[in-house]
Amino acid sequence: MSVVRATRRAHFCAAHRLHREEWSDERNREVFGDCSNPNWHGHNYVLDVTVEGPVDPETGFVMDLKHLKHAMAARVVDDVDHRNLNLEVPWMDGVIPSTENFAVAIWGRLADAMPKGVKLCRVFVQETPNNSVEYTGPENAEAS
Amino acid sequence: MSVVRATRRAHFCAAHRLHREEWSDERNREVFGDCSNPNWHGHNYVLDVTVEGPVDPETGFVMDLKHLKHAMAARVVDDVDHRNLNLEVPWMDGVIPSTENFAVAIWGRLADAMPKGVKLCRVFVQETPNNSVEYTGPENAEAS
Amino acid sequence: MSVVRATRRAHFCAAHRLHREEWSDERNREVFGDCSNPNWHGHNYVLDVTVEGPVDPETGFVMDLKHLKHAMAARVVDDVDHRNLNLEVPWMDGVIPSTENFAVAIWGRLADAMPKGVKLCRVFVQETPNNSVEYTGPENAEAS
Amino acid sequence: MSVVRATRRAHFCAAHRLHREEWSDERNREVFGDCSNPNWHGHNYVLDVTVEGPVDPETGFVMDLKHLKHAMAARVVDDVDHRNLNLEVPWMDGVIPSTENFAVAIWGRLADAMPKGVKLCRVFVQETPNNSVEYTGPENAEAS
Amino acid sequence: MSVVRATRRAHFCAAHRLHREEWSDERNREVFGDCSNPNWHGHNYVLDVTVEGPVDPETGFVMDLKHLKHAMAARVVDDVDHRNLNLEVPWMDGVIPSTENFAVAIWGRLADAMPKGVKLCRVFVQETPNNSVEYTGPENAEAS
Amino acid sequence: MSVVRATRRAHFCAAHRLHREEWSDERNREVFGDCSNPNWHGHNYVLDVTVEGPVDPETGFVMDLKHLKHAMAARVVDDVDHRNLNLEVPWMDGVIPSTENFAVAIWGRLADAMPKGVKLCRVFVQETPNNSVEYTGPENAEAS
Repeated sequence: MSVVRATRRAHFCAAHRLHREEWSDERNREVFGDCSNPNWHGHNYVLDVTVEGPVDPETGFVMDLKHLKHAMAARVVDDVDHRNLNLEVPWMDGVIPSTENFAVAIWGRLADAMPKGVKLCRVFVQETPNNSVEYTGPENAEAS
Repeated sequence: MSVVRATRRAHFCAAHRLHREEWSDERNREVFGDCSNPNWHGHNYVLDVTVEGPVDPETGFVMDLKHLKHAMAARVVDDVDHRNLNLEVPWMDGVIPSTENFAVAIWGRLADAMPKGVKLCRVFVQETPNNSVEYTGPENAEAS
Repeated sequence: MSVVRATRRAHFCAAHRLHREEWSDERNREVFGDCSNPNWHGHNYVLDVTVEGPVDPETGFVMDLKHLKHAMAARVVDDVDHRNLNLEVPWMDGVIPSTENFAVAIWGRLADAMPKGVKLCRVFVQETPNNSVEYTGPENAEAS
Repeated sequence: MSVVRATRRAHFCAAHRLHREEWSDERNREVFGDCSNPNWHGHNYVLDVTVEGPVDPETGFVMDLKHLKHAMAARVVDDVDHRNLNLEVPWMDGVIPSTENFAVAIWGRLADAMPKGVKLCRVFVQETPNNSVEYTGPENAEAS
Repeated sequence: MSVVRATRRAHFCAAHRLHREEWSDERNREVFGDCSNPNWHGHNYVLDVTVEGPVDPETGFVMDLKHLKHAMAARVVDDVDHRNLNLEVPWMDGVIPSTENFAVAIWGRLADAMPKGVKLCRVFVQETPNNSVEYTGPENAEAS
Repeated sequence: MSVVRATRRAHFCAAHRLHREEWSDERNREVFGDCSNPNWHGHNYVLDVTVEGPVDPETGFVMDLKHLKHAMAARVVDDVDHRNLNLEVPWMDGVIPSTENFAVAIWGRLADAMPKGVKLCRVFVQETPNNSVEYTGPENAEAS
């Protein structure tokens, strides 16, 4: 039985800001540059979620990508689309909304939404056409 | 002598919000939907600026696109990149930062930056992969 | 008051076949090549619909693109997505589903869905990354 | 000697349908939705084939990508372009033409076309801009 | 009878250099910058050719895009792909291979290749993702 | 602490030629085809550089991508943009400028530019939209 990876893409847009409250404005600007602008900025994010599993011999699917699409909408996109990642997303509370932290938090939202036998294996977030991040789960920390 | 159009593309990201202060929150949400979120949202904008003119027989250029790039940076991109279009862009003051108004305002920033013999002929602004706007100047109003 | 063009993009996929029933199989294959395959083939179509009008001073919109999106869904996309353009789309009846005829038919579906003061001005259909068609309405026939 | 992966991309379009003959129409529609449409639908597929091997010190190539292009054309693209994946592709006989099964079948077509020292390491099939599948070969089944 | 525009896209890569022999190296570098590098540089060009005409009621085509593809290959792409635009393309002789001059020259290669009733109406050449040029023919010179 | 991969993209254009001096013209043409054209050809290259490391709890970054951008500019892009890869890039001396060799050489330029705790993990070079190469470092040679 073949093990295959399937990917579903979603798009959304959001505002955010990179800054640490306990740092001075100068330090924030030094580390985060324009990304620390107190008046916010934003992006059109691209989110690719990849799942891995054996191909079901009856359906030919790893999993129905419509179900993955709905999980991504219900657990991620509906919470962040046209939202402020610093102020309005409970599952981003207490972390700087860098693309890295965002990808890890999205993994946390989706990992337990997988059907039996299917593993979440990759969350890819593109913040701009030139900047993107990929998280393949906590097991990778060991390997490094 | 051939008349040709040349286009330079730029990218930037910004936050904005669509709302009218004199309207109630309900009316703002009814008209502008999620785009009226008081906590802002944002986009990766794509800006295409097109100029038209005869091809210079010495250089083979309508105009040097490096000069167009610099004009776009100095008069538009540096003012809006990583900025809030409602709060931080003097030349957007008093207009709702819809893509339509944004394109018209960008035209106003660039029209008098053209070298002799070259006409600004198109400002194209893509707000999301699915939504974009094109402005070809005030002469078009007559024609419609 | 500025006149601006706004574009909304949609995606769908469909099956089709180019052939004329009154022609022999040989003639169909000679004219239409692989596109006449009796077992069908299909495409991921990209549809761009452009409208033109004055910018509303209250909203900053030519028209609310959500309304255009809904008109495109209700009058076009819902009828053709995951459908067979030869067999299942009443408003394509009797015409060969070439990209040209498809674009003209889509224009016919949308022209009277425009709000007051807004004109449909362009239907763009991409059949493959290398083949696309643009229709700007019946007034163009005169001009040619 | 460096081990490198090289990828060649191809495009084709095809019709298909997801359904099981032994299932009722209701069950097919319940599981496969619009994809089970008996009148077919279709896609512009994107196929990326990746090979891995040491860089030949004389040519600087893992393998000549022209040869990979020809193998992909002769063994895959010529069989499926402008075809019906359910009816006209012998090497898809008996399997539902899901993207997963399609990617695994393409692997089977190409694995023994590799020159000495080069391994096929990835077949990526994009069915729509939002849905794609990746197969990295039967060895992966063990690892999972 | 509807008048429609159809576009065919092609890709090729070439080397070129912007310089005038009668100018000093300093002047060339001042005007053309890095583009005047005597050791050449190059691009992956994208070429879009657009034709306009009434839709043939029998075929549904403005013209068979396979024929346009072949004309583009025979008259343009085969002459420039993997070539040096300054040294190896007879129909670019004596002009600086700017994108503007290139687009005008491509127009000259294709204008008389149109079938009866079909007009060449646009040559678009993208030199880089950020720089492109559009030529719509000699009639435009009058209008400007 | 999560281990994440972050990718920065850059664009540049260059000329090159694939040939071995010790081979006859016939042999060069036989092996390298049009790529051996003595008058050069060129490409718009896309370069993706991926780094891996734990997410810094203070900044939310694997590393500041601005620093990666600057390292890519200073050590790679400034040396190759608008240059001839055969004649003008010291760190490509003595190797055929295939995409494979180019990716390996870029790795060599960047591997020791990583901040403490961050690993270079992938250099991806796209030569044309259809041809690309990926190098994940010398450790991979063992694994194969």
